[in-house]
Amino acid sequence: MDRRSFLKTSAMGGAAAAATTALAAPAYAQGKRTLTMVTTWGRGLAGVHDSAQRVADNITAMSDGNLTVDLKAAGELVGAFEVFDAVTSGQADMYHGADYYFVGQHPGYAFFTAVPFGMTAQELVNWYYFDGGHELHDELGQIFGLKSFLAGNTGAQAGGWFSKEINGPEDFNGLKFRMPGLGGKALGKLGASVQNIPGSEVYQALSSGAIDGTEWIGPWADEKAGFQEITKTYYTAGFHEPGAGLSVATNREVFESLSPAHQKIIEIAAGECHQWNLAQFLSNNGAALQRLQAGGVKVMEFPDSVWDAFGKASQEVMAENMGDELFKKIYDSAMASMKSSSAWLNLSSGVYTAQRDRVLG
Amino acid sequence: MDRRSFLKTSAMGGAAAAATTALAAPAYAQGKRTLTMVTTWGRGLAGVHDSAQRVADNITAMSDGNLTVDLKAAGELVGAFEVFDAVTSGQADMYHGADYYFVGQHPGYAFFTAVPFGMTAQELVNWYYFDGGHELHDELGQIFGLKSFLAGNTGAQAGGWFSKEINGPEDFNGLKFRMPGLGGKALGKLGASVQNIPGSEVYQALSSGAIDGTEWIGPWADEKAGFQEITKTYYTAGFHEPGAGLSVATNREVFESLSPAHQKIIEIAAGECHQWNLAQFLSNNGAALQRLQAGGVKVMEFPDSVWDAFGKASQEVMAENMGDELFKKIYDSAMASMKSSSAWLNLSSGVYTAQRDRVLG
Repeated sequence: MDRRSFLKTSAMGGAAAAATTALAAPAYAQGKRTLTMVTTWGRGLAGVHDSAQRVADNITAMSDGNLTVDLKAAGELVGAFEVFDAVTSGQADMYHGADYYFVGQHPGYAFFTAVPFGMTAQELVNWYYFDGGHELHDELGQIFGLKSFLAGNTGAQAGGWFSKEINGPEDFNGLKFRMPGLGGKALGKLGASVQNIPGSEVYQALSSGAIDGTEWIGPWADEKAGFQEITKTYYTAGFHEPGAGLSVATNREVFESLSPAHQKIIEIAAGECHQWNLAQFLSNNGAALQRLQAGGVKVMEFPDSVWDAFGKASQEVMAENMGDELFKKIYDSAMASMKSSSAWLNLSSGVYTAQRDRVLG
Repeated sequence: MDRRSFLKTSAMGGAAAAATTALAAPAYAQGKRTLTMVTTWGRGLAGVHDSAQRVADNITAMSDGNLTVDLKAAGELVGAFEVFDAVTSGQADMYHGADYYFVGQHPGYAFFTAVPFGMTAQELVNWYYFDGGHELHDELGQIFGLKSFLAGNTGAQAGGWFSKEINGPEDFNGLKFRMPGLGGKALGKLGASVQNIPGSEVYQALSSGAIDGTEWIGPWADEKAGFQEITKTYYTAGFHEPGAGLSVATNREVFESLSPAHQKIIEIAAGECHQWNLAQFLSNNGAALQRLQAGGVKVMEFPDSVWDAFGKASQEVMAENMGDELFKKIYDSAMASMKSSSAWLNLSSGVYTAQRDRVLG
């Protein structure tokens, strides 16, 4: 069913039910309506599928079922990486996913998930709500016919699982590694053979030797994915996704056909889920890491020489995209906000947590 | 008007409008309804009043006006510190406030704003959503007839404004200082004369010399309050409120009389506002601090000896409350979650931001 015929059917189907309230809101169709949400996540993928489900369920619940969201996980209607085109074309009404999967559509989408050496989750929401981030997300959405809201966050992602220890930047040379987005492009500059594989297919790729290593999310989701069964070498801090945002994007024509109340329900359900999902990852990661270590996983940290190489490669990747005017506009906005946010965070909670660790031991 | 007559009037007023939808939901009253929200904030107080207004507006908008929230700021219906009793008695339907103002009702309420040497805002939401925090908030609510949700956060609060520099713990001896909650009790152990004054009255108290110093929130809200007009000595990091949560509490009988959709709207509007409000404070603080410094404010950090004294006094205050079984239960739950959360945060975003600062300079 294409979008146009969906809209027509929906408006007709709702006409009878809407009759009694038509005077209150003549401009948009009333009555029960179902929106199809496709996602970039295999059904049940820890944290990421959960956040899509929460947004869907809360929209349905807050609208008392008048706006029911029917979630189709990756592969159930379209493939993980096909959701963007499915929603812009009207094949589906909305998607939940990580927008950096769509840097092919526009490189600016990277900022709404994560860019290498970019913002933490907190810095991201500071920018999104108060320093122009959401308006820029909307500017991209106007190009593609989407209305987007942040709707999840994994927190700072782990450096990943490796078949060998990384002692210097040269160890990335020739390494077949899974890493999406601009982080992946940066890793390519260190000589890695970088691949972008949907989450539900990573275990198979790693266990078959098609890749030598992978980042996924963090201890909790990684443990559920089972990577510890394949290798025991795990780097906890990474440069590539310091606070990976997930988004809900609704076909803009569909969104604009909804009542202001239903539009607000989508916006607030998405926003609340960003916070809920971040808490979910962060609260589960500590316990999961302890279990992984008890199972023999070796927790590692990249040496400074590797971080230096990550930094240089990341800046090169950003520079390569500056020819795109909108990318540069988003970059400048994000970096200005990050600089201001992080300065205050260092002076307040940074000093506090350092003193707390020192005093309480 | 008391709660009982309110409920009766509301149900009757809604009867006609509800007639057509009575079959769909026979158990609770339908039709338009107005809830009165009282707050602990003077109208217009930066950030804190804003978050109360956002919750109110989003409930009204998402319910399409069927559940309209009428906000009465401090003093408009009841005083700032009277909101708890107003809602438990049914004089008002809900409050937005900082729950540590109500440690007199139960000391356990401190945890849902902040306790000295306690959780950052992120650690608070991790605990609240996934490690039992919300359930414990609800256990307190059952005692007092409230249904509570976190609905705002100031981030780590500044150490405050002082009439003199603090070079050692002895400098607190005899100091008349405004600090609410258990942090204030800890400061009392250092010999300070601690006062709890509503936000809208602090400027007057400080400028008249009734107090020698005050903490309020952070650079942005403090600048708006105008404390820089009175003294120029400002400590940015504090021990007392490392991530001060704000709450919306609804009279439990009123809450349970609402439809599941309207209950969910209150819950999600509150949760979203916690994130929005935290971003509001954090994004504004950096720029405000620069303005304050340009205006001659001297930014200070307490020496380690003072942090040591804060830590000792804070632990004494917590120990004094352990005789209350529910306080101890909440403390144990919060501290276990904080320990697990902070361990992962240190290993992931902590390492990341340190490397980012090092590499990018």
